[in-house]
Amino acid sequence: MTSSDLQEQLNLKALNLLQEDADKIQKLIEVQMENLATRYCPLYEEVLDTQMYGFSRQVDYAVRVGLIQELTGKQLVNKLERNLALLYEAMNNRE
Amino acid sequence: MTSSDLQEQLNLKALNLLQEDADKIQKLIEVQMENLATRYCPLYEEVLDTQMYGFSRQVDYAVRVGLIQELTGKQLVNKLERNLALLYEAMNNRE
Repeated sequence: MTSSDLQEQLNLKALNLLQEDADKIQKLIEVQMENLATRYCPLYEEVLDTQMYGFSRQVDYAVRVGLIQELTGKQLVNKLERNLALLYEAMNNRE
Repeated sequence: MTSSDLQEQLNLKALNLLQEDADKIQKLIEVQMENLATRYCPLYEEVLDTQMYGFSRQVDYAVRVGLIQELTGKQLVNKLERNLALLYEAMNNRE
């Protein structure tokens, strides 16, 4: 394997893992949105905020190591933040 | 550069960045310990807990990408956790 193959492979792995984590948080947000509709479970704002923080730290780290582009990282975080903002807006509209 | 050179270089960079972050949190813990002695500033338990969480997520990510050994990651986190535990113990003894 050449070094550029390895770099490509690592970059892909780094990005895929981030995408997996983003999907998990997205799933959490969706579950919270469903709960909001059914009032079945309490909302865990803090849990989501903590997840988002952890995720943004992972992304930041991947950028610093040089595994993903800064712009790609920003896009991953922004997408989740938008969904989280929508959730909080929906919560506030209920109160 | 060969692929093993690249791997070594990335592993070293990944570890150095984690060590830098650990040092920053360690510094935060020390500042908190000094504040405990002088009562000059409030303690930010939550800030430290959040920092620790973010750090453990970064370490976990580095292990998953394959940049550092699992044991190395555990040692980095354990060392900080021990210092944090000492800080909390000192806090509780004051009260």
